[in-house]
Amino acid sequence: MTTQSHLTYVLRLADTALILGQRNSEWCGHGPALEEDIALANVSLDLIGQARMLYGHAAKLEHALTGVAKSEDDYAYWRDEMAFLNYTMVELPHHASLSGTAAANRDYAVTIVRNFLYAALMAEIWPALETSTDTELAGIAAKASKETRYHFAHSRDWLVRLGDGTEESHRRTQAALDQLMPYTNEFFAGDAVDDEMAAEGIAPALAPIKEAWQRVVALAAEEATLTLPAAGARLTTGKRGLHSEHMGFLLAEMQSLARQHPGASW
Amino acid sequence: MTTQSHLTYVLRLADTALILGQRNSEWCGHGPALEEDIALANVSLDLIGQARMLYGHAAKLEHALTGVAKSEDDYAYWRDEMAFLNYTMVELPHHASLSGTAAANRDYAVTIVRNFLYAALMAEIWPALETSTDTELAGIAAKASKETRYHFAHSRDWLVRLGDGTEESHRRTQAALDQLMPYTNEFFAGDAVDDEMAAEGIAPALAPIKEAWQRVVALAAEEATLTLPAAGARLTTGKRGLHSEHMGFLLAEMQSLARQHPGASW
Repeated sequence: MTTQSHLTYVLRLADTALILGQRNSEWCGHGPALEEDIALANVSLDLIGQARMLYGHAAKLEHALTGVAKSEDDYAYWRDEMAFLNYTMVELPHHASLSGTAAANRDYAVTIVRNFLYAALMAEIWPALETSTDTELAGIAAKASKETRYHFAHSRDWLVRLGDGTEESHRRTQAALDQLMPYTNEFFAGDAVDDEMAAEGIAPALAPIKEAWQRVVALAAEEATLTLPAAGARLTTGKRGLHSEHMGFLLAEMQSLARQHPGASW
Repeated sequence: MTTQSHLTYVLRLADTALILGQRNSEWCGHGPALEEDIALANVSLDLIGQARMLYGHAAKLEHALTGVAKSEDDYAYWRDEMAFLNYTMVELPHHASLSGTAAANRDYAVTIVRNFLYAALMAEIWPALETSTDTELAGIAAKASKETRYHFAHSRDWLVRLGDGTEESHRRTQAALDQLMPYTNEFFAGDAVDDEMAAEGIAPALAPIKEAWQRVVALAAEEATLTLPAAGARLTTGKRGLHSEHMGFLLAEMQSLARQHPGASW
């Protein structure tokens, strides 16, 4: 039987992929080198592709639950801020200070550290979901696992390259890690949805995922000559629909064209 | 023997692909639908990929000519406006009025019409270049031909869908066609470089390309219920390095990050 928790779980995965894909796409045409511009754009496209598959699945779950028929674009363009269930970390701008949004202030170190922390998480979650009792989700996970292995390798390579690079690149990468680490608490702060999904064999339990993630992150930080900060006690709430002040601006950017021409052929 | 004309010809192809890829990438994350967002991003990535291959070839030609060793990023990020040799059409913003650059004012009809006019050109040029006496260029052309067939089909589908769509979409598509048509004169206004390339069998003669392009464009316009305007007598000069007022802003956006950290690993 389809449950609201099941739908919520799938939307959290979908929204996190979409919003990070959207954030990363801000680098399109502004990357530090042609090759890297293309690599980062491909990561964005993978993430948005994952979101599309997950929204398609969410639509079936929601239809079974409420009888309402929705499309992937309904989820992406026609929901308001509180309906989005992504982790807060992925909605943050690419700025160490988190102030200002001008393109010129974007910090590539923030982009790389965030992609690394998230890819390291999904490199554990997606393979575990391949054996989900939700067989459609398991199919999506099989495809996403492959993509995520590349995202992880790419962001880890850059993390080491920047951390163990120049004095300036080290300083910025450490600052990005210090800034973003507290947001990872939300990855592992299980709630009733997570407990229910684990009990039903739809999703993995979070405790072993957390342990594996911590090992992988610590090892990479060491190789990058970075000091791994404590995550602290602060807990963000994006996955419950309560977002940072940055989310509204991101949605306005992302949704404006679709909303200007509702139902139109463009 | 390598000539300056040969290098110029390859840079014109490369710069046009890069600058259009750059313009199209402005839609990243702002498209009208998730599927279309991904499709347009893929077109951008193809174009930037073509530019990279062509810059790699240009670097060899320039090295043979002058002994100077350049990289693809040198061409993309470290040349000033007058060194770029792209057609003027591809540097224009996505606005029917050509005034203002705010994202909210972008007109998808301009994007589609421009992509169509350019793809229709390259759908003739690339296959002809597959038999170039420059065998490296012929190899690049083989890959680009395949990509361009998709770009052509995609933009032509949208042209028809918008032109033969709602009253509003028809009006905007016709306006975009009226605005952009005069810029196509530059495609076919041959100069000494074009003559020399044709004489050496490096590039095709422009007259038969123009005839084929006109047939293809007229047919698509008819199917889209659009009135094909005359191209008029105005001749833009981007391929000679004399650009519109929009080019400087585009380059500033594209080059700023690479120039902030010259030679750095990001």
